[in-house]
Amino acid sequence: MTSATMPFPPVDQNTEPIGVVHVGLGPIGRQILAFLGDRKRYRSVGAVDIDPDLVGKDLADVAEAAVSPGQVRVVDTVSGLGSATPGAVAVHCAGSSLEKVAPTFMALLEAGYHTVSTCEELSNPWATQPQLAADLDACARRNGVVLLGTGVNPGYSMDYLPVVLAASQRAVRGVQVHRVQDAGLRRLPLQRKVGAGLTTDEFADRVAQGTIRHVGLPESARIIDRALDLGCTGYEETIDPVIADSAVPLGAGTIEPGRVLGIDQLVVASRDGEPVIRLHLQMAVGLADPRDVVTIDGDPGLESVIRGLHGDSATAAVVVNSLGRVQVARPGLRTVDEIPASPINL
Amino acid sequence: MTSATMPFPPVDQNTEPIGVVHVGLGPIGRQILAFLGDRKRYRSVGAVDIDPDLVGKDLADVAEAAVSPGQVRVVDTVSGLGSATPGAVAVHCAGSSLEKVAPTFMALLEAGYHTVSTCEELSNPWATQPQLAADLDACARRNGVVLLGTGVNPGYSMDYLPVVLAASQRAVRGVQVHRVQDAGLRRLPLQRKVGAGLTTDEFADRVAQGTIRHVGLPESARIIDRALDLGCTGYEETIDPVIADSAVPLGAGTIEPGRVLGIDQLVVASRDGEPVIRLHLQMAVGLADPRDVVTIDGDPGLESVIRGLHGDSATAAVVVNSLGRVQVARPGLRTVDEIPASPINL
Repeated sequence: MTSATMPFPPVDQNTEPIGVVHVGLGPIGRQILAFLGDRKRYRSVGAVDIDPDLVGKDLADVAEAAVSPGQVRVVDTVSGLGSATPGAVAVHCAGSSLEKVAPTFMALLEAGYHTVSTCEELSNPWATQPQLAADLDACARRNGVVLLGTGVNPGYSMDYLPVVLAASQRAVRGVQVHRVQDAGLRRLPLQRKVGAGLTTDEFADRVAQGTIRHVGLPESARIIDRALDLGCTGYEETIDPVIADSAVPLGAGTIEPGRVLGIDQLVVASRDGEPVIRLHLQMAVGLADPRDVVTIDGDPGLESVIRGLHGDSATAAVVVNSLGRVQVARPGLRTVDEIPASPINL
Repeated sequence: MTSATMPFPPVDQNTEPIGVVHVGLGPIGRQILAFLGDRKRYRSVGAVDIDPDLVGKDLADVAEAAVSPGQVRVVDTVSGLGSATPGAVAVHCAGSSLEKVAPTFMALLEAGYHTVSTCEELSNPWATQPQLAADLDACARRNGVVLLGTGVNPGYSMDYLPVVLAASQRAVRGVQVHRVQDAGLRRLPLQRKVGAGLTTDEFADRVAQGTIRHVGLPESARIIDRALDLGCTGYEETIDPVIADSAVPLGAGTIEPGRVLGIDQLVVASRDGEPVIRLHLQMAVGLADPRDVVTIDGDPGLESVIRGLHGDSATAAVVVNSLGRVQVARPGLRTVDEIPASPINL
């Protein structure tokens, strides 16, 4: 009925490319390299891996389409990278145990790199490893850079999104997240990680040994609890198998009835015995209708249903889309809810 | 199958309350006062309104449950507020025209207040009023405070949320948002604003006069364009009536068939003629299934459906939940995508 046309001004951009160093060239590290190949704002300027088969190689021969030949040679330690140019970011994809990788973070921060890592325990170490968190925070601040642990989960679907959605509420009493992922669509290591094909006894043994457990749900619960000041006083975590009730095809083979398809993991955080935060992750072969449902129990309350948050791809994307965001965040050890939403697609 | 319990550490909070001054005591301003009454972190310390019936009154007699009697008396100009204590925030709900309210913003910023406003044109004035935006930005930076325009739309459903959702994508080619609101559930001024009950001729006249138009869609499109670097070169905005095809009850009366139920407003931003961003707002009496749908055309793409983003309540909530967030943002004129997601529920 009425119409108007008006030009958009060009986006004001610092045209100097931002240097990225890659620490860890496993599946996720390589996926991030490939994703960065599409982006005009970033340039890969260094790479580190401990694998002797990779050290000394040209990064262009290791990873697809992300860097020109002759630009970057893989080294075996962070000390081989040299100091950061202003704004440079290290992308770290090499381990879930914060205690083991903390010295690497310290070295990267001291060299002046903003550091973004898929280390799940880094997503929110303030409660679990307070001294180490404080040391990393101090080191990042001293060097004027940001240290961030992120990915799709932890880092996005069970912490950042619920906090973002809660901003529309007058008050929040509780938060529920239900994430359903079809592990059949994911990479093989993930299928192994969730126990696909095991007997229930084997599954129980691995849970008891701690080798079957998705890391990050308590970290996410604590991000929600702190952001929304929900006053949680404790949590319980349970890990159960999803069991095949008929034969389920997987790759070239089949998972027989009675065998394990994957994990059903639940964290319930409570305040004085009352459940407040419920994070429910189902990651198994053949699960129908993969989705992320966030339910805010609040005033007026809200339900969000997202389809399309694929695990591996989303982890790499969230990391890549954080590289511009850490540039404009306050220096220090940060959780995902503490960095701005923009700029992301540079 | 396995369980663990571990206490959460108490949330580390600055226990000093943050002072809030209220500029504009209309319906949204009062709703914000009521919402703030539930929050422990904030204390109302000042109020301004030009209405002679309010000036000189005790704020406790004007607004519900937000402040104790004898604490705050309503004054008629910002200069009557005095200087801000550290971290103090002004909540401004008094007008959509940035040009008209800019002197008020300047005065608040100079007095040291972070300023959060529902002024729709403030949500992203960089393209439409670049000189004024630059002046406000410089003033905010000089005083070390943040100036932010927000609300549910613009400020959340059509800009912040799509940017947040895009962070899960390897690449984004386009963004579509469809917001459906039942104006029958909203306050009376909103029903008038969308033209409920008018003839189609009356509606057309008011659109031509510019009195029927939801302000903010181009501002939201520009936030998305800039955050995701989509390179839009122009946009078109159309405003059509939603027309009753049968009698629709409203309050004590009825809207007859053929009369207007509300607006159907569309902004399509394009890059060299190709549509890239599509923001579609339907706000009319009796619309079924109120919802916010965000579709990201990207790699791998995503669809998000939210139910529960009620207009008035969400605007007041988004403003209240921004007060903690501006404290930790970089000083200056900011758009919603530039402030962190936390802390919000203090």
